[in-house]
Amino acid sequence: MLEKLKREVFQANIDLVKHGLVIHTWGNVSGKDQESGLIVIKPSGVSYSSMKEEDMVVLDGGGNKVEGKYKPSTDAPTHLYLYKAWPSLGGIVHTHSAYATAWAQAGKDIPPLGTTHADHYYGVVPCTRELTADEVETDYELNTGRVIVERLKGLDPLALPSALVNCHGPFCWGLDAGEAVYNAVALEEIARIAFYTVLLKKSEPVESYLLNKHFNRKHGKDAYYGQEGKKNK
Amino acid sequence: MLEKLKREVFQANIDLVKHGLVIHTWGNVSGKDQESGLIVIKPSGVSYSSMKEEDMVVLDGGGNKVEGKYKPSTDAPTHLYLYKAWPSLGGIVHTHSAYATAWAQAGKDIPPLGTTHADHYYGVVPCTRELTADEVETDYELNTGRVIVERLKGLDPLALPSALVNCHGPFCWGLDAGEAVYNAVALEEIARIAFYTVLLKKSEPVESYLLNKHFNRKHGKDAYYGQEGKKNK
Amino acid sequence: MLEKLKREVFQANIDLVKHGLVIHTWGNVSGKDQESGLIVIKPSGVSYSSMKEEDMVVLDGGGNKVEGKYKPSTDAPTHLYLYKAWPSLGGIVHTHSAYATAWAQAGKDIPPLGTTHADHYYGVVPCTRELTADEVETDYELNTGRVIVERLKGLDPLALPSALVNCHGPFCWGLDAGEAVYNAVALEEIARIAFYTVLLKKSEPVESYLLNKHFNRKHGKDAYYGQEGKKNK
Amino acid sequence: MLEKLKREVFQANIDLVKHGLVIHTWGNVSGKDQESGLIVIKPSGVSYSSMKEEDMVVLDGGGNKVEGKYKPSTDAPTHLYLYKAWPSLGGIVHTHSAYATAWAQAGKDIPPLGTTHADHYYGVVPCTRELTADEVETDYELNTGRVIVERLKGLDPLALPSALVNCHGPFCWGLDAGEAVYNAVALEEIARIAFYTVLLKKSEPVESYLLNKHFNRKHGKDAYYGQEGKKNK
Repeated sequence: MLEKLKREVFQANIDLVKHGLVIHTWGNVSGKDQESGLIVIKPSGVSYSSMKEEDMVVLDGGGNKVEGKYKPSTDAPTHLYLYKAWPSLGGIVHTHSAYATAWAQAGKDIPPLGTTHADHYYGVVPCTRELTADEVETDYELNTGRVIVERLKGLDPLALPSALVNCHGPFCWGLDAGEAVYNAVALEEIARIAFYTVLLKKSEPVESYLLNKHFNRKHGKDAYYGQEGKKNK
Repeated sequence: MLEKLKREVFQANIDLVKHGLVIHTWGNVSGKDQESGLIVIKPSGVSYSSMKEEDMVVLDGGGNKVEGKYKPSTDAPTHLYLYKAWPSLGGIVHTHSAYATAWAQAGKDIPPLGTTHADHYYGVVPCTRELTADEVETDYELNTGRVIVERLKGLDPLALPSALVNCHGPFCWGLDAGEAVYNAVALEEIARIAFYTVLLKKSEPVESYLLNKHFNRKHGKDAYYGQEGKKNK
Repeated sequence: MLEKLKREVFQANIDLVKHGLVIHTWGNVSGKDQESGLIVIKPSGVSYSSMKEEDMVVLDGGGNKVEGKYKPSTDAPTHLYLYKAWPSLGGIVHTHSAYATAWAQAGKDIPPLGTTHADHYYGVVPCTRELTADEVETDYELNTGRVIVERLKGLDPLALPSALVNCHGPFCWGLDAGEAVYNAVALEEIARIAFYTVLLKKSEPVESYLLNKHFNRKHGKDAYYGQEGKKNK
Repeated sequence: MLEKLKREVFQANIDLVKHGLVIHTWGNVSGKDQESGLIVIKPSGVSYSSMKEEDMVVLDGGGNKVEGKYKPSTDAPTHLYLYKAWPSLGGIVHTHSAYATAWAQAGKDIPPLGTTHADHYYGVVPCTRELTADEVETDYELNTGRVIVERLKGLDPLALPSALVNCHGPFCWGLDAGEAVYNAVALEEIARIAFYTVLLKKSEPVESYLLNKHFNRKHGKDAYYGQEGKKNK
């Protein structure tokens, strides 16, 4: 079942390695079939080098396994929570990519320090609050999804397709698994440039008119970046 | 038309990826045909992996499309402004390469901290002022060209073949597209070494006699670096 | 003799290069045959590019050469000391990987700044005290093993499978040579992210409940990360 | 003439690129034939990608061209000065490798912060004084050699096979061109780890007994690192 989606999710997982965003098994990608509501996700703790398309695990929206010989990624409840909260999402990525994770460990939003950021994110890349002891001890992975949604309250998740979980690392999303990986690659580069910039002693965000201009020329209703009839990434 | 120039501009765009200066579609190269005054430029938002030579867009000096199925790079008005201001230019590159962009985001000129810099640039790599709200809201890309030319006033653009646009990133140029890419590669390495140097707590420029010596042994009228009858890069 | 173990140790040494953890001859891996108690280790000062499986040196637990045309790694007494102190160990790695070595040179434990660390290490990655002049002048490599064991006193070496030797660099271990390399790769990435994090001005460890949660969901008695019947790394 | 030495010097130049120590034409290697006293050196400003073995230039000890269609590297007088001052040298490398160059631009010796350094260098990697205006304006490249020799006065150049020229970059040497490249690779890694270490707020050198131990176990008269009858690098 869902062979095409399994292939996409498998490929997206492999692409994390290709782009240098994960080592070992430190990341996972899922995709959602919008028609059936089923989720395809990486199996837990299986290495990227031996993993195959057919190892992908299929879950229903409640987290029950529908198909697959392996247990799903431990982070599946986080993915499921985000898909439920934001029905337009079709793909989610979690990595421990070095620069984004450093910002998460520092507990800091990534400020929009230039147009590279503004081309991609409409405002800061938000960092969640820390989870409480209770939230960690019970339903930890579910609560990880909750603090992400709480932090983005009032914001459009597709205009801000990434968040940092405090002391943990980045989650990125998009209309499908490939777009979520695309955003994870962009986030790591933006986090890297922001890191260099603050070491050069500049940490005030850009003027809002510049942020608006760059985001909107790519993603606004009168966007003129890219080709007609194509959604810009 | 202009098949040779299209091939050069295409190759120069691909070289940005090869040299690690761009991810996704975060950069663009153009070239100018000095005889006809026509400009060949990367199409907007087309990925480097699927792009072909014939996808290059041909514009006249006023920005009108002469050939090509795609829209040109959004940054085309910046390129056109620079070609008009500096008629000797034959190639222009724009990237968001990480270290150069960090200096741009910090709003700082890159100071000449050693001979690596002096071999290549006759003075600081200048950073423009920030654009005003008006300049951003109307004719943004044209005004980006304007602040570059304003900042280099009185300087020779071929002796200083790069500038940083404040809160944005680097533009580099040269006699042709290949030379512009060559300069973009040099700039990123110089920006990287300067970044490390200031973290080691040294930020005063080198003595002017050392700057003069290194620049002139390569590019001056009595240059003795390189082979006879060959312009040094 | 021990052809399978020699192959594993040879491959583990080569993997250090593949993962970018060593240049030149700056590292070594050994493996232990639990049945016979014999140790297989890299020869001293032989380059990775010319080294062959049959060049691996076999030692008994007292450090006497049992087989091999080369002298063993100079660091063999450190390896032997650790195998003796901790009989469950089956593989040991020593590298000068850049970020882990920088923490060692700084003489600092790597604090657990996030879940990436907590997934792997149950507490700080400990840094030993400096060796005294006497300890350096007599039995230096043996004493290097001693300060590691001294520093881990009361801790489970398999829950904390790495240590930094002050002013020197990391040693990592595991149930076999491959697992020791796995840990060396993880340590370098964790050291890198921790380095970036402290430059972003955050150096307090994570809450203990988060550390416990992440370590135990992977390695505790009720671990739910990974697949049944498989030890998680 | 000197076909074997030309091949070695050519290969050593290519290896600089392979090891990521140079971009463009930012480096050069020479080798000396001890019997005839002739020097083989990279041609000036010729790109690594198009360079061939037969393009190497042969000079006599006075700098006169003996063979070759190209002009020698601009830095030839520096190489010649060092060969004359230190007759045992058989190879010299100059690069602008990023971390070593940053230390040179900062005008700082690289302190021995750990055993990685001590394994390779018997003391600081020394940085020269700045050249005076006169020294820059007349016989600049010769004076570059002079300040290196001046700075190493009383030290053994083969126990300290590298120096940083202030505001410029590293020169490395050895018994032949290959060994000089070997040292340039080691220097860049040592400079990188030292850079990270000082950012972690540690800059006091290691105890002299540790420095002595590590240097001497590899290079001293009772060295026990490596195999019998082989010089250790």
